[in-house]
Amino acid sequence: MRQGRSMAMREGTAELTEYSADDLELDLRWWAAANYLTVGQIYLRDNALLRRPLQHSDVKPRLLGHWGTSPGLSALYVQLNRLIRRTGTPCVYIAGPGHGGPALVAGTYLEGTYSEVYPAVSQDAEGVLRLFRQFSSPGGIPSHVSVQTPGSIHEGGELGYALVHAAGAAFDSPDLLVACVVGDGEAETGPLSGSWKIPAFLDARRDGAVLPVLHLNGYKISSPTVWGRSSDDEVAGYLTSQGWAPVFVAGDDPRQVFRDLEAALRTAHDRIREIQAAARHGGEDLRPGWPAIVLRTPKGWTGPDEVDGVQVQGTFRAHQVPLSGVQTDDAHLALLEDWMRSYSPETLFTDDGALVPELAALAPDGDLRMGATPYANGGRRRTPLDLPPLETYAVDVPSPGTTFHQTTHPLGELLRDVYARTTTADGGGTFRLFCPDETASNRLQAVFEVTDRCLQAEALPTDEHLSPHGRVMEVLSEHLCQGWLEAYLLSGRHGVFATYEAFAMVSASMVIQHVKWLQHAATLPWRAPVSSLTILLTSTCWRNDHNGFSHQGPGLLDTVIPLSPDVVRVWLPPDANTLLSVADHCLRSTDHVNLLIADKQPHLQYLTLEEAAAHAAAGASVWSWAGTEGEDGGVDVRGEPDIVLASAGDVPTMETLAAAELLRQWVPYLRVRVVNVIDLMALLPQDDHPHGFSEDRFLELFTRDTDVIVAFHGYPRAVHQLLHGRTNPGRFHVRGFEEQGTTTTPFDMVVLNRMSRYHLVLEALRRSRRVPERGEELARFCRDQLARHAGYVREHLEDMPEVRDWTWGG
Amino acid sequence: MRQGRSMAMREGTAELTEYSADDLELDLRWWAAANYLTVGQIYLRDNALLRRPLQHSDVKPRLLGHWGTSPGLSALYVQLNRLIRRTGTPCVYIAGPGHGGPALVAGTYLEGTYSEVYPAVSQDAEGVLRLFRQFSSPGGIPSHVSVQTPGSIHEGGELGYALVHAAGAAFDSPDLLVACVVGDGEAETGPLSGSWKIPAFLDARRDGAVLPVLHLNGYKISSPTVWGRSSDDEVAGYLTSQGWAPVFVAGDDPRQVFRDLEAALRTAHDRIREIQAAARHGGEDLRPGWPAIVLRTPKGWTGPDEVDGVQVQGTFRAHQVPLSGVQTDDAHLALLEDWMRSYSPETLFTDDGALVPELAALAPDGDLRMGATPYANGGRRRTPLDLPPLETYAVDVPSPGTTFHQTTHPLGELLRDVYARTTTADGGGTFRLFCPDETASNRLQAVFEVTDRCLQAEALPTDEHLSPHGRVMEVLSEHLCQGWLEAYLLSGRHGVFATYEAFAMVSASMVIQHVKWLQHAATLPWRAPVSSLTILLTSTCWRNDHNGFSHQGPGLLDTVIPLSPDVVRVWLPPDANTLLSVADHCLRSTDHVNLLIADKQPHLQYLTLEEAAAHAAAGASVWSWAGTEGEDGGVDVRGEPDIVLASAGDVPTMETLAAAELLRQWVPYLRVRVVNVIDLMALLPQDDHPHGFSEDRFLELFTRDTDVIVAFHGYPRAVHQLLHGRTNPGRFHVRGFEEQGTTTTPFDMVVLNRMSRYHLVLEALRRSRRVPERGEELARFCRDQLARHAGYVREHLEDMPEVRDWTWGG
Ligand SMILES: Cc1ncc(C[n+]2csc(CCOP(=O)(O)OP(=O)(O)O)c2C)c(N)n1
Ligand SMILES: Cc1ncc(C[n+]2csc(CCOP(=O)(O)OP(=O)(O)O)c2C)c(N)n1
Ligand SMILES: [Mg+2]
Ligand SMILES: [Mg+2]
Repeated sequence: MRQGRSMAMREGTAELTEYSADDLELDLRWWAAANYLTVGQIYLRDNALLRRPLQHSDVKPRLLGHWGTSPGLSALYVQLNRLIRRTGTPCVYIAGPGHGGPALVAGTYLEGTYSEVYPAVSQDAEGVLRLFRQFSSPGGIPSHVSVQTPGSIHEGGELGYALVHAAGAAFDSPDLLVACVVGDGEAETGPLSGSWKIPAFLDARRDGAVLPVLHLNGYKISSPTVWGRSSDDEVAGYLTSQGWAPVFVAGDDPRQVFRDLEAALRTAHDRIREIQAAARHGGEDLRPGWPAIVLRTPKGWTGPDEVDGVQVQGTFRAHQVPLSGVQTDDAHLALLEDWMRSYSPETLFTDDGALVPELAALAPDGDLRMGATPYANGGRRRTPLDLPPLETYAVDVPSPGTTFHQTTHPLGELLRDVYARTTTADGGGTFRLFCPDETASNRLQAVFEVTDRCLQAEALPTDEHLSPHGRVMEVLSEHLCQGWLEAYLLSGRHGVFATYEAFAMVSASMVIQHVKWLQHAATLPWRAPVSSLTILLTSTCWRNDHNGFSHQGPGLLDTVIPLSPDVVRVWLPPDANTLLSVADHCLRSTDHVNLLIADKQPHLQYLTLEEAAAHAAAGASVWSWAGTEGEDGGVDVRGEPDIVLASAGDVPTMETLAAAELLRQWVPYLRVRVVNVIDLMALLPQDDHPHGFSEDRFLELFTRDTDVIVAFHGYPRAVHQLLHGRTNPGRFHVRGFEEQGTTTTPFDMVVLNRMSRYHLVLEALRRSRRVPERGEELARFCRDQLARHAGYVREHLEDMPEVRDWTWGG
Repeated sequence: MRQGRSMAMREGTAELTEYSADDLELDLRWWAAANYLTVGQIYLRDNALLRRPLQHSDVKPRLLGHWGTSPGLSALYVQLNRLIRRTGTPCVYIAGPGHGGPALVAGTYLEGTYSEVYPAVSQDAEGVLRLFRQFSSPGGIPSHVSVQTPGSIHEGGELGYALVHAAGAAFDSPDLLVACVVGDGEAETGPLSGSWKIPAFLDARRDGAVLPVLHLNGYKISSPTVWGRSSDDEVAGYLTSQGWAPVFVAGDDPRQVFRDLEAALRTAHDRIREIQAAARHGGEDLRPGWPAIVLRTPKGWTGPDEVDGVQVQGTFRAHQVPLSGVQTDDAHLALLEDWMRSYSPETLFTDDGALVPELAALAPDGDLRMGATPYANGGRRRTPLDLPPLETYAVDVPSPGTTFHQTTHPLGELLRDVYARTTTADGGGTFRLFCPDETASNRLQAVFEVTDRCLQAEALPTDEHLSPHGRVMEVLSEHLCQGWLEAYLLSGRHGVFATYEAFAMVSASMVIQHVKWLQHAATLPWRAPVSSLTILLTSTCWRNDHNGFSHQGPGLLDTVIPLSPDVVRVWLPPDANTLLSVADHCLRSTDHVNLLIADKQPHLQYLTLEEAAAHAAAGASVWSWAGTEGEDGGVDVRGEPDIVLASAGDVPTMETLAAAELLRQWVPYLRVRVVNVIDLMALLPQDDHPHGFSEDRFLELFTRDTDVIVAFHGYPRAVHQLLHGRTNPGRFHVRGFEEQGTTTTPFDMVVLNRMSRYHLVLEALRRSRRVPERGEELARFCRDQLARHAGYVREHLEDMPEVRDWTWGG
């Protein structure tokens, strides 16, 4: 074990007088209780308080969980409790190594919140046994600091997001302290490495504080960690360079470490309050040096030292279950009993099995208990978003498909006013936009009329809309944007993440984890609903003009489709007014993850705001003005259309309408129906998604057996995936993005992917119920046009005028 | 512009004598040529060499590309050329800001490789014009440093992977220098932030060197960057703490910057060779301090200073196209002409339009040119992997489904011997395993018999298999594992990435980008095939025993399914011998991305090696020993089975066989066919994937209209997605992972997701062609068993013995 730097130690020691020997002994005993409960959760199914000798049959048949990180997590827990009681500061505890679940469960159990939330797990012997049995067990609780754990906004299952979540909770929470343990293994991940830059984005004036605790126990699963084998100077240099003022606490003697940790926390807290006070009274120190703690303690601290002649404590071998033979091996069983009795449970719990009063008294009061803080049950703090009426932002649509507008621009204006309405007196607020430096690129720049980009640096004259007090978060990291927003929402606020569609895949795994969180949260009555997470996917595959194939990827859609239908929503508004209407809906909703897919370039506009609202509410509608069903062509006995043209997404909708127009002009007697789908999940059977259309409604739109040509924003088979279970799904012929792309013209993109108006017409003619008379002529025209396109774009480097300038003429 | 630290400057200046004034002037002129060609690519469609006054009609109709980063990239290019000529060191140039594509295209054009690879883009006036016209144009080349760019192994489209790719190319390439530009915006991403830890994993003895060039041009798209507003001390502290020895080069005077950069590169190169020589002659300095360069130059350097009264050069406004009105605005056109003429093209190109000889002479020779280096066209360096015969590793399978084995363990033994066979005399080699610290957890620990985990730190007595010269890469970062492997392969080597299935999603976007790369690479005859990228997904959703819901996610499957069918392969071997057989196939293959999905826990084994090989080659087979078609039950007129039970994946296969056994025992006269699918893409129609079964073969397996109960490893609708286009796809009823999960028993997982043997039997009875006599009785038994399970696991915390101990009895 390397020693902490003497400087840091001295700082701590100076304050020691305030931490009495009695306090220390109490804290150590509380810690023993937490460790005891942790071991018990991992191992025991019976004899929870060791009131009799331990037997093989007391041990669970399957030993699942992680001991190694737990004692460190619990040491911090008891010290934070002390800090909270002394200062009254509300704290959120984020455990990066969330596999130390039993430690956090133990902490919240000891402070009483666990039993309040789960009364069956009571504060007595029966409750302790239930606590043990339920852990990692069928019908019980998972092994991580999951949504089931009171006080958690971070599961710590997929490692890497501890600090992003900490920052997201701290933004606009001026009083809050987020203590965030970062595992030294976790610190190797990309997302965690990228998230130390909090000091560049945290405004001392109106944000709360993040206190990182880098837990250098030296190991991950079986390898040492990079930081575990680095010097204090290296670790300090890394943190200092990013705006932190690290203090080292190190050792394996509990008394010494507890004293140093108490002092380190005390100093850190005082320094944080000092920084904040200065900033809030007009100071402008943009590089205050935020306190951070580096904690070097042994992995599996207080656990078995050696097992079968091999060192366990302080090594990787302590990571999961240090004694694995306890069900059958007498020596292992004896070791386990010794280990558990080393905590002297009889001195920690009363005869009834409740925590002894002097230890119970170490918990803060009421909502200040970390398991009870409303900051970690954000629905309790949330107020619905005060949204302005949409009329102000609506685009004027004199007639469908005749005018162009940047579809995302009015949304920017709406978000501007949401910012304005939710800003608080201290310069904070309850709404934020997160974007990887693409706010203007994505045409949402209206927000800069009321706030700035946030950076803790002095703005230069050449900068635009930059300020330390700005609240638009532009960091070039999809991970940070997504993670900050997640925690901002989980702690009770509202927001949007806007990103290039393709690069939403960078943080796709985080989206999955957030969906999982919300899915399980909904099963817990004590978790109040939080605002939905809305991701605006723009600069889409069809129109990422400056870039190429790498920027063309609608894959997030495929990622979310299989996830919980109670959580996931996918919206494909074809124009600005539908985007407004859907965004309004998403911003009001709770507990969902919404994908909102709309490109930023000038696009044709189709619906007035009123029509848009109706269309969005319907999920999908027949656009009868675009079809030819009403007109008298040939007579079809069943009164059904000859062909249905369906679309979902802005570019597909334009191509579909252009195709419909060609059909109408060339073969007017063909009965064509045009359907637009905006709520993608409506395609799923009713039983499979709350938005799924009833079969009646589905057939009403798509008929029972007419062929349907679908122009789809994403990968074609995503639609087929949804249609399984519908009537005659084989008649749906989907065109969409099929991984053909490069830097080229907009129309060339749809041609390369066989979704152009000409391709759609050709497919419609091929599939139409009745073979239209002039069909062959029209088909020839389409093929000629495709050939003309190929030559034209190569010569003129832009699209043919008839395509470029096309508008709906009907 | 902040000044570089004087210390660094002095170091540089000391060496200046070797860089003559003439050399400097030549380099500046070469740079002017590169910048000229960059601007020309972005703007011109005609009048390429400005032999007449510029006209609006000379300008492209669509101005697409990125100027801002380009001059910095080109400055480094010419300086690297000088370094290569002086030292003979082979270099790979990685451009993190790959949007500076035109700069790298210009560099390779000026050195001649571009024209060798693309003869139509010749070294004359016509070639220059073609070079300009093709850029970002239909039928031309994309705007990034894409696969089309000679010398590139990194597109730089999705930002964040520059340094991981640099390291991957450097591993086991002892002579190579990888110069890697990192954008200051890119430096904000998680993956890039996580990848500075190269010095902890780079072995000076047998690896090449990475020379990072952090390009602090101060801006990303429209915001300043975090590092752009940090002090030199902060940046230096960050790099130093991670094992780098940074040298600063800063300024906006080209002469001064070129002199300093020349000196910095010279010093860096010498220092690298010194470090390597020491290590290769027995020294063991694990913290040598690898050189790194920090380059602070203006964004859009040498471009328009002010446009319309607004500062452009040195600001974010130079990011893309600084003059946007050139097609119509005379003033902008004049600015463009002035700008381009400022490079004096008439002094750079001959009358014929070729580069003047004294500048052409600045290029290194032959394969030392960065556009021609075989390190960046790895297929040219690759030798097929020398794989041992599989017999040695095969698991003994006395009869199907009666013995248990950890499926991944024999694969570990195979990989051990692959390591052994490919190790070179210097301690390097051509094969590596990359894994986020889960090699042993994933049961591949046999590799440690021949090599160690790599860490540049002294091993402690408590460590296992750790050494600075180890070649198993265990870093807790899926991004690093994936990215290192990508570049290791692209530079001509072999490898495997083994990861927990769920967390493969962390680097899913990188998988997508790699598939895109391979897809386009295959269209370029000059790119020789590289080894396939094989990802072993283990610790799967069904058996992530220690963990919970967050660790249960088969989503990578859904991510790759829609990608290029020429690249993507998905394998679901049910047992150890099939895994061996498939792995052998994958390791021999080129230009694919293989997902290999197999759990690590003890599983039932079914096939001998010979049977496994036949099964893997077939892609899917009827397991007639498990079905009841041969036995005489009732007579079905069509001779077809009453029901087909199909499975894909290890756990689904076990449940399917257990279901088949129940049917065989209870309703023996039911004609049940059992099919096992190992090559998932075989389900796709033949036209949609090279592995897709012909319809005949498909019907042979699955009949034309018998219902098929599919037990599937992943999300059920993934299968439906594949089946569209097959005969009667509606008769396929798929069970799989449906996002029900937590820390629980293995059988509880299949019950929660309705894929248990009992669920499969119930579904088979419901769907069977003939209604079996004792069917209702069997159905009752299944429902009872499910009820019994629910009670049993809650009481006993493990699965019912009849399930836990089940083996195939037939
Ligand atoms: C993204 C991700 N990759 C891999 C894992 C598997 N895993 C679980 S715990 C662990 C080691 C964690 O080490 P550290 O962060 O140091 O925690 P501690 O030592 O406190 O247990 C790993 C690799 C994971 N949970 N998440
Ligand atoms: C992962 C990802 N997110 C977003 C983008 C969009 N993007 C393209 S260039 C750029 C700014 C890059 O800035 P920097 O790395 O500093 O490069 P330079 O200044 O040299 O152009 C951004 C955000 C991207 N290409 N990749
Ligand atoms: Mg650790
Ligand atoms: Mg930059």
